[in-house]
Amino acid sequence: MDKPYVAGVDIGGQTTGIGIINAKGLVLAQTTIRTDSHTDINLYLKDLNNALIKLSSKIGGLEKIKGIGVGAPNGNYYTGVIDNAVNLAWAGASVIPFAKLLKEKTGIPVSLTNDANAAAIGEMKYGAAKGMKNFIMITLGTGVGSGIVIDGHVVYGHDGFAGELGHTTAVRRNGRNCNCGRTGCLETYASAVGVARTAREWLEMSQEPSLLRNCDKITSKDVYEAAIRGDKLSIEIFNYTGKILGESFADFIAFSAPEAIILFGGLARSGDLLLKPIVEQMNASVLFMWKNKVKVLFSELNESNAAILGASALGWGS
Amino acid sequence: MDKPYVAGVDIGGQTTGIGIINAKGLVLAQTTIRTDSHTDINLYLKDLNNALIKLSSKIGGLEKIKGIGVGAPNGNYYTGVIDNAVNLAWAGASVIPFAKLLKEKTGIPVSLTNDANAAAIGEMKYGAAKGMKNFIMITLGTGVGSGIVIDGHVVYGHDGFAGELGHTTAVRRNGRNCNCGRTGCLETYASAVGVARTAREWLEMSQEPSLLRNCDKITSKDVYEAAIRGDKLSIEIFNYTGKILGESFADFIAFSAPEAIILFGGLARSGDLLLKPIVEQMNASVLFMWKNKVKVLFSELNESNAAILGASALGWGS
Repeated sequence: MDKPYVAGVDIGGQTTGIGIINAKGLVLAQTTIRTDSHTDINLYLKDLNNALIKLSSKIGGLEKIKGIGVGAPNGNYYTGVIDNAVNLAWAGASVIPFAKLLKEKTGIPVSLTNDANAAAIGEMKYGAAKGMKNFIMITLGTGVGSGIVIDGHVVYGHDGFAGELGHTTAVRRNGRNCNCGRTGCLETYASAVGVARTAREWLEMSQEPSLLRNCDKITSKDVYEAAIRGDKLSIEIFNYTGKILGESFADFIAFSAPEAIILFGGLARSGDLLLKPIVEQMNASVLFMWKNKVKVLFSELNESNAAILGASALGWGS
Repeated sequence: MDKPYVAGVDIGGQTTGIGIINAKGLVLAQTTIRTDSHTDINLYLKDLNNALIKLSSKIGGLEKIKGIGVGAPNGNYYTGVIDNAVNLAWAGASVIPFAKLLKEKTGIPVSLTNDANAAAIGEMKYGAAKGMKNFIMITLGTGVGSGIVIDGHVVYGHDGFAGELGHTTAVRRNGRNCNCGRTGCLETYASAVGVARTAREWLEMSQEPSLLRNCDKITSKDVYEAAIRGDKLSIEIFNYTGKILGESFADFIAFSAPEAIILFGGLARSGDLLLKPIVEQMNASVLFMWKNKVKVLFSELNESNAAILGASALGWGS
C-alpha cells in the first residue's frame, strides 16, 4: 500500500505538537493537544491517537502514514523509552516504553528521540544546518538541551543518552544547584530560568537601580524587555549569560570541531543581546585553530515546526 | 601485484617508531629513528624512507606495502598536513604537507592522523576497546591528548582537528597558563608536566615535609616513586590530579555517552594511585544516568605498539 506521509510528534511539558508531513518536508496538517491534562499515560495516548486520526482524515487516513517520529524530553532513541522525564505529568520519575505503547495504539511504526535531537534533525533537513555534516544544536528554553551531529548523524552514544551539554559544568567551584542533583551546570546559568535567577541574585546583591525592581516575579522575558529599553543591569545579565555560554562553547568545539553552533528556543530570540557576548567570549576562549572559524547561528525554523519536522524525519525509518 | 602489508609510523617529539604489519595486526618488523636530529624536514624524510626500505627488505621490499599510516602531533586526517607542531624539531610553527611529501619520497599512499587518534584506532582494533563502538582515549603524556570514537569511527569534525580534550577548561578562574595560549587547560594539570608543576607549586606553598624536597628537578616519575613509598604529599598530588581528570570526564561523558574512557601514556602507568580518585570523582560529578556505568580502563597495548598499530590501520585505506 502507498504510504507517502509521516507524522511528527513534539512532546513538551505543557503541549504536544503534532504534524503530518510529506516527503518534501511540507507540514500538510498540524494541531496541538495538552500534555499536562492527564497524569495517566493511557488517557494521554488516547488523546494523541484521536488527534492523529483526525489530522490524517485530511490526507486519506492513518493507513497513509509510513511512520511516526516522536521527540520527547529524556527520550531514548535506542530503547524507545521516556526515562525519568519529571516535567511530563504522566511520566514523572518512571520509565515509559512510549514508542511501544504508541505503536500498539496506532498500529504504525514509532521512532523516538529526545526533543533537542529532534530539533537538530529538523534544522539539518530544513533549517540553518542544511548541508552541514558537523554542528551542535543548543536549545535555550526552560532548560538547556543539545543535539550533536557528527558526520551527518545525531550522536546517541553507547546508551542513547549522549548530548546532555546543559549538564556540563560551567562553574566548578560554588556553582549553582541544578535540578539534576549536580552543581554548576550550564543550564542553571544559561536557560530562561537561569537568566531570571541571575537577575534575582544580582538585584539582591547590589543597590543598583534597575527597571527589574518594578517586576513582581522576574522572568527572562522581563530581563529581555528591560535590556531593550536600555536597562544597564539587564544588559549586563545578558553579557554575563553570553560569556558563560561562550566559554562552554569553546570546550564543545574542542570535542567535535563543529562547523557551527545553532541556537534555538525562547532565549535565542534575544538576538544580538546574547549573540555578541557569546561570540566574543567563544573566540577569546577557544583553542587557536578555531578562533573566528566556528559560526554561531540562530535556528531558521519556527519553534514548533523544527521539533515536529525533526521528529517526523525519524518516521521515514533508516 | 600482491600487497599484503602496511606500515605504521608514530612520530613523537624525540623518536619515531616504524613498524610493518600484516592483515592480522602482527608487527613483523619494527625500528625507531630520531625525530629530533634534524631541523630540515627533507633530511628527516630521507632517514624515514631509508628505515622503511631497510625494514621492508625483510618482507619482500617496499612494493609489498599497500599503504603507510602516520600518527603525528597536530596531524590532520583530511588534509594530510602537520600543523603548528611546535614539539617537532623540523616542523615548528609551520604547516607541513607531510602525507604528500612522504608519498613522493616512498611512492606509497600515505594517510595521516594525530597521535592520539592513531592510538584510539590501535586500541579499538587490537586493545582494550576491541568490540567497542563508543569510547574516548585519553593520552596522559607530556601533554594530554584524546581520540574520540563514536559509532565505531574516529571523530575528526568539520576541519579534521576534533578531539582536543587536553585543551578543554579544567579550571575556569585563575587557571594555569598553557603553552597553547589559553588558561586552565586540563593538560596543565593532568599531564606528566602538570603533575610536576603541581608538586613544585605545593612544595613552595607549604612547609609540609616530603621526599620530593630531596629531588633536584622534580618529574612526574619522582612524584610517582615518592607516592609508592608512602609520601603523603605525593599521594595527595595524585588525588588532586585524579579529581581534576574525573571532573573533566563527567563533562566528556555528557557529550558522547561513551562505553569507556581508556587511559594511555606514561602517567597512566601510575595505576590505582591515579585511577581511584578519577573513578570516585567521575561518579560523584557525572549526571545521574551515567553514575557507575562508564568504565575507566587502562590501555592494553604497550605504548610504542598502540600508536604504530593504530597508524598502520590507516594504511589499509577506507
